[in-house]
Amino acid sequence: MLYLVGLGLADETDITVKGLEVVKKAERVYLEAYTSILLVDRGKLEAFYGRPVIEADRELVESGSDEILAGADKTDVAFLVVGDPFGATTHTDLVLRAREMGIETKVIPNASIMSGIGCTGLQLYNFGQTVSMVFFTENWRPSSFYDRIKENVQLGFHTLVLLDIKVKEPSLENLARGRMIYEPPRYMTVAQCASQMLETEEERKEGVYGPDSLAVGAARVGAADQKLVAGTLKELTGVDMGRPLHSLVLLGRKTHDLERDYIREFAVDKATFDASWQKSYGATS
Amino acid sequence: MLYLVGLGLADETDITVKGLEVVKKAERVYLEAYTSILLVDRGKLEAFYGRPVIEADRELVESGSDEILAGADKTDVAFLVVGDPFGATTHTDLVLRAREMGIETKVIPNASIMSGIGCTGLQLYNFGQTVSMVFFTENWRPSSFYDRIKENVQLGFHTLVLLDIKVKEPSLENLARGRMIYEPPRYMTVAQCASQMLETEEERKEGVYGPDSLAVGAARVGAADQKLVAGTLKELTGVDMGRPLHSLVLLGRKTHDLERDYIREFAVDKATFDASWQKSYGATS
Repeated sequence: MLYLVGLGLADETDITVKGLEVVKKAERVYLEAYTSILLVDRGKLEAFYGRPVIEADRELVESGSDEILAGADKTDVAFLVVGDPFGATTHTDLVLRAREMGIETKVIPNASIMSGIGCTGLQLYNFGQTVSMVFFTENWRPSSFYDRIKENVQLGFHTLVLLDIKVKEPSLENLARGRMIYEPPRYMTVAQCASQMLETEEERKEGVYGPDSLAVGAARVGAADQKLVAGTLKELTGVDMGRPLHSLVLLGRKTHDLERDYIREFAVDKATFDASWQKSYGATS
Repeated sequence: MLYLVGLGLADETDITVKGLEVVKKAERVYLEAYTSILLVDRGKLEAFYGRPVIEADRELVESGSDEILAGADKTDVAFLVVGDPFGATTHTDLVLRAREMGIETKVIPNASIMSGIGCTGLQLYNFGQTVSMVFFTENWRPSSFYDRIKENVQLGFHTLVLLDIKVKEPSLENLARGRMIYEPPRYMTVAQCASQMLETEEERKEGVYGPDSLAVGAARVGAADQKLVAGTLKELTGVDMGRPLHSLVLLGRKTHDLERDYIREFAVDKATFDASWQKSYGATS
């Protein structure tokens, strides 16, 4: 049996009791360590589980899935995924490959950022599609996220923006030279995301949002030092939310008073928050 | 401290290790038991936790929150919620009340159906807004869900439809007579949902979907007997998915081949599935 086990969002104790039983009994345990991270390292997990954990990077999962699946028709293999195994990153390809090989699979769900973002007090029913924001470079500034946010904004929905992480990625220069030397990990911050959003609006000029649009920054959802900040996009370009992971929610206009009351508590500046709110939000559907 | 602890979706072992620690140490433990249910009863939870659990019905949470919050400024109170505390049902009102009383709160996230539905293999990025379907009665057949699905369909998104449950609700007749006698619990099935969707399309005639539209029914997500069925809405009106809880996803046209490969495996009839797919799906954005 191949078990895909969700680890939740913050630390080693966010695994479910059911998931922990699987991890303790499995023959081999892999940790998917390239699309998201916990706030604790692999050593902490190994100590908590009382057993070794094999780090599975992108190469191993995408080209070496046979190694992961080897023998899983007879014994149990656990594949650990930060968040939920079918959340922000969907490991359907691994399950499809297992099916082809006649290996049974079982998923142990857990919190995903796609639902955990509810901790902002914003109602998940009021969210439209989720978008991703990648690190802009000098020559690559993809703005497809802008079109998607536009669809949500037109319907009055909130948009969850998932922020890029670069873990164990070779630099373009090293790739060109055929060297597998990895860059230090990078994690996009709420401030960087807000800046890139505003830059894109300045280029596209379709008025999808602006410096006064309200958003909520969320850092380390589910952790003891979880931090939430509400403010205008302009204000958020200047906030320091601390260590990763960060996410951002752009508010839609279809908001409920309970949502306002909830997020106003952690506004950067209650006066600008109230002014922006008064001007553009609170329309009920 | 008031802890809002997510219990996950299926049984007593879906609580996280972190959540279980809170439950074991709290002074009082309440179980929110009216917006969703686990597949095990309160007795099973009490045996697993080794302590009593107080059932919190709608009356207690909405009008008696002072009782729940009493003393929580000095000791720990745990409020258990099936799924995630800020998932399909948002308990922001309880947190706001606690804030007013100067009581700190902490949320322990868990799997919610809003992300757990990823177990269908359908990508959460391709979902638009989530809608709810209530039991139709002779005189009350609200179709606002239809307008929301329309918005999703026009953009090509999947729609998660959450199905009504009636737990500990007095009948209208008994309410009128001032008697608090409760109806037996009722849980909407995938078949009932598909029927009500088709009835509404027949009334509204806006062509948002039809008998040949593809959908996925999901029952008991995360449980050992989880069941997934893919088929046309017409086919789904005839499926028996077994005991609750059920959910349904109406497919949007912006689908990925991996999604097709994943759900085709549990199609009611692979021939009608392929025919419907060929006709209306697979457009990439």
